[in-house]
Amino acid sequence: MIFECGKYTRKLATPPSLLGFAAVAGKKEREGPLGLEIDNVVEDTFGCNSWEKAESEMQKQAAKLALTKAGLAPPDIDYVFAGDLLNQCIGSHYGMRELGIPFIGLYGACSTMAESLAMAAIFVGGGIAKHTMAVTSSHFCAAERQFRFPLEYGGVRTPTAQWTVTGAGAVVLGAGETLPYVRAVTIGAIEDKGIVDISNMGAAMAPAAAETISRFLRDTNTNPSNYDLILTGDLAAVGSELLVQLLQLDGIDISENHADCGLMIYDRDKQDVNAGGSGCGCAATVLCSHIIPQMRKGKMKNVLFCATGALMSTVSIQQGESIPGIAHLIHLSNE
Amino acid sequence: MIFECGKYTRKLATPPSLLGFAAVAGKKEREGPLGLEIDNVVEDTFGCNSWEKAESEMQKQAAKLALTKAGLAPPDIDYVFAGDLLNQCIGSHYGMRELGIPFIGLYGACSTMAESLAMAAIFVGGGIAKHTMAVTSSHFCAAERQFRFPLEYGGVRTPTAQWTVTGAGAVVLGAGETLPYVRAVTIGAIEDKGIVDISNMGAAMAPAAAETISRFLRDTNTNPSNYDLILTGDLAAVGSELLVQLLQLDGIDISENHADCGLMIYDRDKQDVNAGGSGCGCAATVLCSHIIPQMRKGKMKNVLFCATGALMSTVSIQQGESIPGIAHLIHLSNE
Repeated sequence: MIFECGKYTRKLATPPSLLGFAAVAGKKEREGPLGLEIDNVVEDTFGCNSWEKAESEMQKQAAKLALTKAGLAPPDIDYVFAGDLLNQCIGSHYGMRELGIPFIGLYGACSTMAESLAMAAIFVGGGIAKHTMAVTSSHFCAAERQFRFPLEYGGVRTPTAQWTVTGAGAVVLGAGETLPYVRAVTIGAIEDKGIVDISNMGAAMAPAAAETISRFLRDTNTNPSNYDLILTGDLAAVGSELLVQLLQLDGIDISENHADCGLMIYDRDKQDVNAGGSGCGCAATVLCSHIIPQMRKGKMKNVLFCATGALMSTVSIQQGESIPGIAHLIHLSNE
Repeated sequence: MIFECGKYTRKLATPPSLLGFAAVAGKKEREGPLGLEIDNVVEDTFGCNSWEKAESEMQKQAAKLALTKAGLAPPDIDYVFAGDLLNQCIGSHYGMRELGIPFIGLYGACSTMAESLAMAAIFVGGGIAKHTMAVTSSHFCAAERQFRFPLEYGGVRTPTAQWTVTGAGAVVLGAGETLPYVRAVTIGAIEDKGIVDISNMGAAMAPAAAETISRFLRDTNTNPSNYDLILTGDLAAVGSELLVQLLQLDGIDISENHADCGLMIYDRDKQDVNAGGSGCGCAATVLCSHIIPQMRKGKMKNVLFCATGALMSTVSIQQGESIPGIAHLIHLSNE
């Protein structure tokens, strides 16, 4: 059963377990602070002859590993929720094609790990499915040439720009005793404060994150100190600072227990990533390589996972549009 | 409550009503057989300075009209499920931006009207939401320049090619007595039989439609004669013929009561559309302008609505990949 909790939040009375999870990523991510926790790391082409095919391969590997770790096979999964950044989400379509699982395609840009987890949890918690899977990915080279410039061009990136993570994450959900559980979900609305600089997506996404976190805390009548960690998706350096400021204006202080996946996955002093990491694979890799294992070991009991997305395209930006942002929140808990 | 019915189908014990619905489309669609049933028709730029912005405008108009017809306002809607064909689904993001409704972005290519309806129905039927909305759109000019050639090039199209519908549809769901209801939902899996011709998407999608329809009929232990209409999304002339043949091989004869949105929206003898219509807006416009009103008038009691999608991108095709297809099915009923 699923219960309304305030206007925007849904609590899961029988919270689904994260039965299995996996992160697969590239060489640069291996060299980052979480590198040794990533399940599988290979060279960035993953044995494929294009970066887009490599991204699909990463998704497939992550999904298969998560299934194996859950002790399940594709026919055991009722629905897979997946999406990515590539035009028409081909990372997911070719990645999930051979698994044969009923497929619900999502587009949430870099918020996809939270969006897919939210749907996957609601389907299990609402009794619609026994087992579900949430999957997403991004690939630096595929994203760079699609959204920005050919890599060969070697364009200089601005200080506010973020580095798209080459990584994929997959989580299998179902009833069980395995920690952690998904306790609650808050789906965000589109927020657009008029940011037009595509090299500053942190600023475009921060208002959405602030609104979603604020809605969740109000709906549940809790405050930041009730959580071990409030983890945003990929706001990186600029967006994280803005988020803390925006929430302070709203009377909410997350400065003591906020972290951002975009600031965790790389060492900004040693790795050339400007403001930090981004991409669907950023939140997915950090969640599946580091956060869930930390919770399973009991090192954290309550985590708010709030992945953020920038919903523009190159066409909308060229036509002078601003960047709409979105953020979805998942309350992960051992309790 | 939602009940399992066979492996792939979910029945909605308290079936949600289609409380409001609207179709907004372009000039060519007005000139087609269903033209007079479309709620709102304007010139193809909808007063905007780009086709992409026009597509967003269409979505917004369709959503607002559907809300008005349901007697509801945006704050009454718990979740909107929306997606479209444009890169990064900008039709939906800019179209839904000002409504402020918690937003779940989908990508299902031309299957999006069924995918969004399925999710919207499950959320109401499963007690997760009181009111939901399902929205999608496509725009011929925006799709043509994104997927094929600049319009100015005037490329000749092959006989198997389809014409992307300029149209948007929106449906508001909630508890109620308003006909029709969503009785059941079958989410499809990705099917890929190796078709590589992007001018023959009907052939790429037909196997997915055949599989989903067959699964629904097996799961519910019903046969085609139990339904007034089995309506596929946009298989058009080539795909429709293949679908009937594929199902015949499976011992299922739908030839007596099958129709396809791609064959209904245009007059193929008088309008230059080759094999017929396509695009997310094709199934959406036919459903919202013609099918739901016919059901509300009691002219049909049970309809299977199975929208189909081709999940490739220009990049995947250029890299030699085949076209994965998908089809989701909704059982609409007055009973």
